Amino acid sequence: MLGKDYESQDCSIAGALGLIGERWTLLIVRDAFYGVRRFSDFQVHLDVPKAVLSERLGQLVHDGVLNRIPDPRHTGRHLYELAPAGRELWPVLHALLVWGGRHVQTNSRIFRHATCGKKLNEDGSCPACKVVPNVADIITAPRPGLSPSRNDPVAIALRRPHRMLEPIEIV
Amino acid sequence: MLGKDYESQDCSIAGALGLIGERWTLLIVRDAFYGVRRFSDFQVHLDVPKAVLSERLGQLVHDGVLNRIPDPRHTGRHLYELAPAGRELWPVLHALLVWGGRHVQTNSRIFRHATCGKKLNEDGSCPACKVVPNVADIITAPRPGLSPSRNDPVAIALRRPHRMLEPIEIV
Repeated sequence: MLGKDYESQDCSIAGALGLIGERWTLLIVRDAFYGVRRFSDFQVHLDVPKAVLSERLGQLVHDGVLNRIPDPRHTGRHLYELAPAGRELWPVLHALLVWGGRHVQTNSRIFRHATCGKKLNEDGSCPACKVVPNVADIITAPRPGLSPSRNDPVAIALRRPHRMLEPIEIV
Repeated sequence: MLGKDYESQDCSIAGALGLIGERWTLLIVRDAFYGVRRFSDFQVHLDVPKAVLSERLGQLVHDGVLNRIPDPRHTGRHLYELAPAGRELWPVLHALLVWGGRHVQTNSRIFRHATCGKKLNEDGSCPACKVVPNVADIITAPRPGLSPSRNDPVAIALRRPHRMLEPIEIV
């Protein structure tokens, strides 16, 4: 990835960017948090060239961010799921989401604590329970009042409120 | 920047990456937090080609992340300082630093609360004062026991513990 460029940088920010700083990589990880698992679903939702997606998924598996497991429904195909190291990327994505929401464009999704239903604060904490929920305890849903710009099958599946990391059902 | 690639992505993470997701951009922002302000200092510390640095700095100024101000010591030259929107990127960098420190390489710097001197938690909060300090109230210093890999003038200046955002003095 960017490792060669950044290897003279004695810094864990550079180290992190060497693994997940490549174009498209963090959007693939974002979709994995939202429950996307199949190559074809990443592809249709991201509009990314197949060769790029294939390279990025392979690298994320190599780096321990994603696990590749056999797809029980399609012999010979695979599913991609966040590995433990990948799940720990949620604070990075959430910080980007908050900053982008303030300075670039309103985020199209909202995040609630599954336990109490309250919308999470910008620091990721629950205003009622005063904890930062584990990502598996967050419900994500489209932001009310925003008209969706995408109509691919993954975008449509993501209109149903659901728990983060829970595989989405594509109809 | 990446805007054209990501513009079909109805999401503030993609929006943020459109502004700060380009190669080198977040390391330039990191150095700005550490007090680097001059073109030549970014260049010597990042080992980035001058044309790339010039393009990235120009884009960051255009996007409101950095301010460009005249350099009082060098007529015709400029200083680059974080604009308010740029200062709000610290949670993104800190989250990358924590993740990279866990999964890639130990971070070379530590961060203390200026008010009490305590090392900050991984979530950026002060364990003693129970607040998340403003970035200007954080002291950064090299991590004890790590031998520095860089010996450029900026890396040497950064060995002195100092307050984030405070301009570094290059000797």
